[in-house]
Amino acid sequence: MPLDVIAQRAGVGAGTVHRHFPTKESLIAAVVTSRLARLAERAEGLAGAADPAAAFVAFIRELTAEARHNVALAGALGGAGIGADGAAAAAALAAALGLLLARAQHGGGVRPDLTVPDLHAILAGVIAMERGLPAGRQGIGLDVVIDGLTTHPA
Amino acid sequence: MPLDVIAQRAGVGAGTVHRHFPTKESLIAAVVTSRLARLAERAEGLAGAADPAAAFVAFIRELTAEARHNVALAGALGGAGIGADGAAAAAALAAALGLLLARAQHGGGVRPDLTVPDLHAILAGVIAMERGLPAGRQGIGLDVVIDGLTTHPA
Repeated sequence: MPLDVIAQRAGVGAGTVHRHFPTKESLIAAVVTSRLARLAERAEGLAGAADPAAAFVAFIRELTAEARHNVALAGALGGAGIGADGAAAAAALAAALGLLLARAQHGGGVRPDLTVPDLHAILAGVIAMERGLPAGRQGIGLDVVIDGLTTHPA
Repeated sequence: MPLDVIAQRAGVGAGTVHRHFPTKESLIAAVVTSRLARLAERAEGLAGAADPAAAFVAFIRELTAEARHNVALAGALGGAGIGADGAAAAAALAAALGLLLARAQHGGGVRPDLTVPDLHAILAGVIAMERGLPAGRQGIGLDVVIDGLTTHPA
């Protein structure tokens, strides 16, 4: 979609959009950064929840639901290619996710041997799973992984 | 690696290799087809096991271990790009995997709502997980997913 059309749909002047976002890439980076920051805030808000395992699972569900529909967001979770603000937002999200994981593990609701980098790789795999599932079957990959994350290894 | 070097390492004449495999792609397709056929045989052999859930899990472990180290094999599991023999071997493997799944579900050891296409997407996601895990952490993605597959949904 050309920037002029985006401006029209947003109900602002084309000049305004071009001034703030000289390229479409800069607009996408700003949108992705904003989503990452919102997800980080959401994770931080859940860090004080009474049931840490439920808070962890709820956040994993929100994160994968967003990333499933948003290729740019999925790619940006590692903080690459979205500028300094984007990288800072991705780092804040990673830190908040790490806190949710640690609290859930401390409470006994999530397998204790999982590290934050493990979780990142597992979530990237879940997004790949969900994209590969037949139409109408979305969600079962995430359900299987959440069941696995909340099972204690023998 | 050039075909001549492959021939030398295999201890056969370069002419023999070139006669059977005019291109490197044809050699790779033959190797992948052979692996797929061996995996299908292995799955068929496990279909009569006394503990169907254990047989299913053992086979998932073997399959992902092979595919993790073999990009060509991972890509060929759907039967694409490896010719008619390869596609037939991939189909035989998919059928044998479906039988292992059905037996494990019937025995109550694997979640009952999982379909064969679901399982294919989930296994592709596991391979993505395992490739994304930090060095020394391989296996935890597979462990999490196996725990999830063998957990009954609430």
